[in-house]
Amino acid sequence: MRYLGHNKKPIVDRVKPRSDSEKIDGMTVLPVKREIAHEVISISYGFLTPLEGFMNHDEVAGVTSDMELPDGTLWSIPIVFDMSAEEIEQRNLSEGDSVLMSYQGAPMATFDIDEIYRYDNAEMAEKTYGTKDPKHPGVRRTLAYADRFVSGKVTLINEPIFNEPFARYWRTPRQHLDAFAQKHWTSVVAHQTRNVPHTGHEALMKQAWFAANEDKPVDEIQTGILVNAIIGEKRIGDYIDESILLSQDMLREAGYFRDNIHMVTFTLWDMRYAGPREALLHAILRTNLGCTHHMFGRDHAGVGNFYKPYDAQSLLKQYREKLLIKPVFLKENWYCPECGEVTNAALCNHDRASQNFSGTLLRSILDDGVQPTRKVMRPEVFRSVMESSEKYGMGSSFVTEKYLKGRQPIFTLQKMEVLKA
Amino acid sequence: MRYLGHNKKPIVDRVKPRSDSEKIDGMTVLPVKREIAHEVISISYGFLTPLEGFMNHDEVAGVTSDMELPDGTLWSIPIVFDMSAEEIEQRNLSEGDSVLMSYQGAPMATFDIDEIYRYDNAEMAEKTYGTKDPKHPGVRRTLAYADRFVSGKVTLINEPIFNEPFARYWRTPRQHLDAFAQKHWTSVVAHQTRNVPHTGHEALMKQAWFAANEDKPVDEIQTGILVNAIIGEKRIGDYIDESILLSQDMLREAGYFRDNIHMVTFTLWDMRYAGPREALLHAILRTNLGCTHHMFGRDHAGVGNFYKPYDAQSLLKQYREKLLIKPVFLKENWYCPECGEVTNAALCNHDRASQNFSGTLLRSILDDGVQPTRKVMRPEVFRSVMESSEKYGMGSSFVTEKYLKGRQPIFTLQKMEVLKA
Repeated sequence: MRYLGHNKKPIVDRVKPRSDSEKIDGMTVLPVKREIAHEVISISYGFLTPLEGFMNHDEVAGVTSDMELPDGTLWSIPIVFDMSAEEIEQRNLSEGDSVLMSYQGAPMATFDIDEIYRYDNAEMAEKTYGTKDPKHPGVRRTLAYADRFVSGKVTLINEPIFNEPFARYWRTPRQHLDAFAQKHWTSVVAHQTRNVPHTGHEALMKQAWFAANEDKPVDEIQTGILVNAIIGEKRIGDYIDESILLSQDMLREAGYFRDNIHMVTFTLWDMRYAGPREALLHAILRTNLGCTHHMFGRDHAGVGNFYKPYDAQSLLKQYREKLLIKPVFLKENWYCPECGEVTNAALCNHDRASQNFSGTLLRSILDDGVQPTRKVMRPEVFRSVMESSEKYGMGSSFVTEKYLKGRQPIFTLQKMEVLKA
Repeated sequence: MRYLGHNKKPIVDRVKPRSDSEKIDGMTVLPVKREIAHEVISISYGFLTPLEGFMNHDEVAGVTSDMELPDGTLWSIPIVFDMSAEEIEQRNLSEGDSVLMSYQGAPMATFDIDEIYRYDNAEMAEKTYGTKDPKHPGVRRTLAYADRFVSGKVTLINEPIFNEPFARYWRTPRQHLDAFAQKHWTSVVAHQTRNVPHTGHEALMKQAWFAANEDKPVDEIQTGILVNAIIGEKRIGDYIDESILLSQDMLREAGYFRDNIHMVTFTLWDMRYAGPREALLHAILRTNLGCTHHMFGRDHAGVGNFYKPYDAQSLLKQYREKLLIKPVFLKENWYCPECGEVTNAALCNHDRASQNFSGTLLRSILDDGVQPTRKVMRPEVFRSVMESSEKYGMGSSFVTEKYLKGRQPIFTLQKMEVLKA
C-alpha cells in the first residue's frame, strides 16, 4: 500500500543512474534549459506521478479542456517540452528517437521521443489560465513556447547533487514517505509556500494542524505539518529561495512548532500562478509526497486579480472525489489590535480594527533591513532572513538581477566523460 | 430526520402543560428536592433522550456494569430518584401509582411509579466513579442516597419560567435545533463549561472550530460553537451561575467570536465529576441538543486526582462507534512568553517557559477584584464578572453560603389552585 500516489498510481521512479560506458555513448545530445531540467527531475522522482515524461498532443488537449489525462486521471496543467522546428531539424530529431538530455554541460536524462506536434499556444494558455491576458505570467510563459512540442518518457541517469542549504531540505517522494513513517505520522497536512513566514502563515499552519487531526485521543495524535516550498523560476522581487527554506525551518528551530510535528522540504516546480488549477496541481503533488491533507487559504497560487479569493477552494471542492488528499480550507488571518493577536477572519468580529497582512508592506520593511514588530514576524525568522540576505542574496532578501546572475546553483550534475567527446 | 437524538432516538418530549381541572385534582402530592426537580425538567424536555423517567433496578445495573440500557443504548451514569422507606410508607406509595410531584410549593410533574427497589449504593458509586473514596463528590452524593429508589416516567405539567439572566440562555433541545437551522449551521461543536472563560478556554474553542469544519470552501462553512453551561448543584468556591453565562456570552458580544459562529445556552444538570463517564454523558447530552462535534480537553469533568488527564478521551475513543457526535480531542493551552501568546501544548516547544493556566491563581486574583493581564483574561470578560459579582453574587464572583441562601431562583413555577387544597 505504500508508495502509492495520485489516483492510487505507484509513485513513478524513473531514476536509473548509469555509468558512462552504458548505452549513452553515441546518443544524440540535447541540451535543455532550466525549466525542462527541473521538470525532468520532478517527473523522474515521481513528484508528478503518474506522469512519466512530457505530454503528447492528446494529453495536453485532455488536460486543458477536461482536466484529465486520457485514462481519466485528474490533471490540471500541461507539462510540455517546447522546441522550435528549427532546432528539431538542426538536431535531426524524429519520433521514435532516444536522445540524451544534457544540462549545465553534463548528461542528465534519456528522452524517448514519442511525438513531435504543434499546439495552439493561445488556446492552451486561455484554457489553462482562464484568460489570454499576457499580463498573467502563466499566459506569458505559454505564449512564449516555441512552435513545436516534443513528448515522451524521460529517465534520469545522473542524479542532481544539491548544494547547501538545499541539500538538507531535499527529499524525493519516497524519502518523504519514509520520513513520515519514521516520525509515526499518520496524518500530514501540507503547507504550500514561496514565502518567508509571517505570523499569519504560522497561524494558518497551526489552524490546519487542528483540522487535520482525526478524532484520536491526544496521546495518539501523530499529525505532522509538511512545509513544502516551491523552488523554481524566480521573478524580481520574490523572496530568495535560500531565505524561504531557512526561515520556514526557523519556526521549528525556535520552538514555535514542536520538533515532532513540523518538517520543511521543497519541490522543483515553476509557479504558473494558475490559481484554482495550480491548487489542484499542488494537491496532486503533495499526494505524491504522502500527505493526507493540504491547506488552502485565500488567493492560493493566484496572481493579480485574475482569480477570486476562494476560486481555488471551489475547484478543489468540485474535484474532491478524485483526490486522495483532503483539502483544509481556511480564511486569511489578520492581526487584530482588539484581540491583541493574530486571528482568523472567520472568527474575529473586529473587522474594522483588524489589519490584513500586507505582503507589500512587509517586503518594504525587510528591504530596509528593519525588524518588523514581533506581532507580525518572529524575531528569529527576521534574523534568519537577514542572514540569508548577506550569505546568499548579495545583501538583498529579494531576487535581483544580481542574484539571478550570481547565485550559487541549487544543484550540480556530475560531469561524465561522454559529453567531452 | 430532525429532532433525533442519542442513538437515533426521537428527542423525548414529555411536556404536557395542564390546567388545574384536568386529572391532577386529588392525586397524591409528592414534594421533591432540587436535584430531582432539575432532572425532571431535563428528562421531560429531552436533554437526556432516550430517558423518559428515573431508572429502575435493571437499568441502573446495566448502566453501572456495562454502560448500557437494557435495549443496548450507551449510557454511563445512573439517573435515579432516591427516597427513604419511611417516606414511601408515610406517603403510602406503591408500584403502579401515579403521583403529582411538587416543587417550590407548586405542582410540577406527574410521576408514574413503576418500581420501588433497593440498590447497593456503595456498588453504584464504585462502578460509576471507579473509586469508593468519599472525597469524590460523586461518590459522596451516591453514598448519601436514601435507602430506596423509585423508578418511572415523568411528565412535566408546569413549565418552569426562567428568571434573568437565565431566561435569555434557556433553550430546549428542540429550540437548539431550531436555532441552529435558523443560523444555517451544518456543524456545531459543543463546549462544556462551568467556568468564566480565560484566554485558554477561548483558544480551545477556536481550535475546535477549525477541527469541526468539514472540507467545505470557506464561503460555505457554517460551523457554530455551542457553549453549553452546566447549571446545577453548586459547591462553595464555584463560579456563580450568572457570571458563567454572562461572561461566556461576552466573548461574542465583545467580538472575540463572530455573531454567526457562537451561542451560549445551558443545561440543568448536577455535575457528578465522573471524569470519563461524565464525558460520555456530556457527549450524549450535546447530541440531544443537535451538536455534531464535542470538544474534550484535559481533565474533562474530573475532580482531584481521580482520573488521568486524558482518561475521558480514551473512553470516548472506545465508544466512538456508539456516538452520533464526533469528539474533538485537544491538549491544554498555555500562555507562552516566548511565543508571546496563548498556544497549545501540542504545538509549542517552549515547555520550560510556558505557563499553565492556574484556575486557583485566577480565582484568587478575581476574588480580590484585581484585573488579570489581558493575556489571561479579556478585559470585557473581567468587567462582566465584576458586574455579576455585584448584581448576583453579593459582592463575590464565587459561590458562598450567602449566595446559596440568598440567590434569586433560576426559575419559578406557576402556582396552581390544586396545591392550595
